[in-house]
Amino acid sequence: MRRLHGEDAQFIFQETHAQHQHTMKVVVIDPEGARAPLDYESFREGVRLSIPMAEPFRWRLVKVPLRLGHPWWVEDPDLDIDYHVRRVTAPAPGGKHELSEVISMIASIGLEHDRPLWQAWMVDGLEHGRLAYVMKVHHSLADGLSSAQLLLDMLTESPDEWPDPPPLESIPRDPIPSKKWLLADSLVQDARTLGRLPRLMAKTARSGQAALRQNRTAQPLARSFAVDKVRWNAELTPHRWFAHDTISLREMKRVKNHFDVTVNDVFLAVVAGGARRYLLAHDELPADSLTASIPVSTRQPDQTRDWGNRTAIWSIELATTIDDPVERLQAISAHTKAARAAREERGPQLQHDYMEAWPIWTTVVNWLPRPMRRYTSKASYSLIASSVPGPRQPLYANGAKVVQVISMGPLVMDLGLNVTGWSYCDDFTIGAVACREHVPDIWALMDSIIESFDELR
Amino acid sequence: MRRLHGEDAQFIFQETHAQHQHTMKVVVIDPEGARAPLDYESFREGVRLSIPMAEPFRWRLVKVPLRLGHPWWVEDPDLDIDYHVRRVTAPAPGGKHELSEVISMIASIGLEHDRPLWQAWMVDGLEHGRLAYVMKVHHSLADGLSSAQLLLDMLTESPDEWPDPPPLESIPRDPIPSKKWLLADSLVQDARTLGRLPRLMAKTARSGQAALRQNRTAQPLARSFAVDKVRWNAELTPHRWFAHDTISLREMKRVKNHFDVTVNDVFLAVVAGGARRYLLAHDELPADSLTASIPVSTRQPDQTRDWGNRTAIWSIELATTIDDPVERLQAISAHTKAARAAREERGPQLQHDYMEAWPIWTTVVNWLPRPMRRYTSKASYSLIASSVPGPRQPLYANGAKVVQVISMGPLVMDLGLNVTGWSYCDDFTIGAVACREHVPDIWALMDSIIESFDELR
Repeated sequence: MRRLHGEDAQFIFQETHAQHQHTMKVVVIDPEGARAPLDYESFREGVRLSIPMAEPFRWRLVKVPLRLGHPWWVEDPDLDIDYHVRRVTAPAPGGKHELSEVISMIASIGLEHDRPLWQAWMVDGLEHGRLAYVMKVHHSLADGLSSAQLLLDMLTESPDEWPDPPPLESIPRDPIPSKKWLLADSLVQDARTLGRLPRLMAKTARSGQAALRQNRTAQPLARSFAVDKVRWNAELTPHRWFAHDTISLREMKRVKNHFDVTVNDVFLAVVAGGARRYLLAHDELPADSLTASIPVSTRQPDQTRDWGNRTAIWSIELATTIDDPVERLQAISAHTKAARAAREERGPQLQHDYMEAWPIWTTVVNWLPRPMRRYTSKASYSLIASSVPGPRQPLYANGAKVVQVISMGPLVMDLGLNVTGWSYCDDFTIGAVACREHVPDIWALMDSIIESFDELR
Repeated sequence: MRRLHGEDAQFIFQETHAQHQHTMKVVVIDPEGARAPLDYESFREGVRLSIPMAEPFRWRLVKVPLRLGHPWWVEDPDLDIDYHVRRVTAPAPGGKHELSEVISMIASIGLEHDRPLWQAWMVDGLEHGRLAYVMKVHHSLADGLSSAQLLLDMLTESPDEWPDPPPLESIPRDPIPSKKWLLADSLVQDARTLGRLPRLMAKTARSGQAALRQNRTAQPLARSFAVDKVRWNAELTPHRWFAHDTISLREMKRVKNHFDVTVNDVFLAVVAGGARRYLLAHDELPADSLTASIPVSTRQPDQTRDWGNRTAIWSIELATTIDDPVERLQAISAHTKAARAAREERGPQLQHDYMEAWPIWTTVVNWLPRPMRRYTSKASYSLIASSVPGPRQPLYANGAKVVQVISMGPLVMDLGLNVTGWSYCDDFTIGAVACREHVPDIWALMDSIIESFDELR
């Protein structure tokens, strides 16, 4: 049994039926070389076998009455496998468009809070007889890197090896705490939060001064509510619309080395260029530069199995006012350097402390921005962009090789576009998700992103 | 623009994310003889063409602030066809189990109240190259008979004919009423309701006396909260689990003639026998007879295009204490005769008047039963059962013959099992829906239903 950290609890508190807070990782598998038929039964059994290794798959949420504190995870190995494991067939011809269509449908269905917060879907009907495994995980359970670990737990790094997990039945069950206990504990926690408030305020003031200093330099951090809303900065609907495509990680690295930037800078430049190109084509590019909210991992190498979220947020200007793609890349690189420096000066702790300080954080994040969002024509940020270094070695499912890894992040507030990049071996796959209603031509956006990479090559 | 009747509004008021209030009609189509390829594009276009004929497909809900009265339908032809028209492929081999699995998934996704309340899905991947069209319609728009009409509007009664509808663009749009107007109008309506209250009370008293008289006869009407809960009389979850199978309508008619009962009596006896057999196998059959809530159409032949609901509810004992299938059928027939007689004595109007008497009806239906459901071990009724006479002539979709018509009704309150029967030509297809969690072995229940028909033949 464990109390959710603030970073994890926010994904519970801010979930609505239109604002799903799950993320998805998709692996596409070439069945050639499989040691056994890759049918639904073997998929279901494979998932069942991986549950003992993956604690978050057994966690059930216990909420504190009246939302008076962070909820708890209670370990409950007695889960209903048929709720969690599902299947669907992609329409013919089963290419990237049809797979994205199926991913959109799966993403548009929320997860129920009264069960462990994940689902695993098997998708067949893909071209060349391929299959996809879709892992839908609530963000409160795992950030990008820890969901990579969940994925690794279900796959193997060689075609032969197969994990030998302990039986599910051997795992002890946590007792479910009483409402009284939950309330009492939360009140103690809230009192502690109150006690820490003066120190938090002092820290905030110091951090504010540092930010002011930073903003007097050549590379100010992107401010929130600084740029005009674009079409996807609108009230979220429940309907996700997804597209994905793959570029070469080797080529990205060549670009990175040539301009002395990072792979993440190249990714952001590609996203910025794509969004700019798409909005220009619709005659909707704001005069000010688009801004991005960028989750950055603060996870140490030995923390890969510390589940939940260990991320900080960077706010980056995407330099979409610059026409030249190389200049845009260099401007973005300067902005990420500044964000990294500012983060180092401030330390990663302040945001974490705020998130722990229920109910301050919930108020700041869920309630204060509402009138801002409603009554200004400015967006909090233009979009969310996130890249995660994925597995460098090929992965296998029961002897069959994983040929592609696709990722999808959540939409939050008015940030109605989320672009994620995941590397796998020599590939880098970009997934973009929005509400159907805001970006019905999501493939035009995806194509613009790919074109903006071609410009940099 | 039109105000929802009480019968229609209740399906809006009682909808939650676990208690979807849509129904589904499914037609399975043999593509042989189709005049054009039956692909997704032509399906989407066919649906688009049928919208001008089907008013309910263009209705958007306008709710009265603070739920102070019945909502309104506003005609809005400007709909987003890609929200309403969807597709999915059934897993191989595409038999009745896989089709039911897909129907379960479609049924588990709710309809959004901010859009016209329907979706049309095309399902391919069925055995023998067949297709299914799934029409998901909110119950507030159409009861069984009027959704049959919506189906007829999309199909033709001969392979050649094809309707020639007016273009969608020619349909005028209703203005959306202001909140002020909606509130004012509802207050007037509510005042009228209050004024009608004394007369309604007098009518209720007379009806109560009639019911008491009835209950002193040999065939009392089934009382609510009279029978122990069975496994599906539990809090609803969002996850529907559906099974369907077909029996011969000719054989049903032979049984009906032989025992001098109605087709509906045979249907109810089959459902009763199936539920009894299933519960016996689980050692869960209550000592008292199961009861059913049975929607009965009050629609006149000239009212097929009066959308919405025109039904009354019969409460019928299912005679599950009787071991002999023929005696059980005869007992059920006596119960339905008594219910018909009682209905004729009372007139169909009382229930309608109550449903119109917002907020009395909402209170009676949504709030009063809650403590009853929570604190008694008795179910309001054991299940919902409903049979509708479907098309007697074969139907065609663009020249391709419809080979099967399948129906699914909604779950309400603790009535966690709904069995519907629909006839089509010489077939009678029975669909059973429950929550996955309550009846994971829904096919065992379906098979028990079919076996209980075989007993009567």
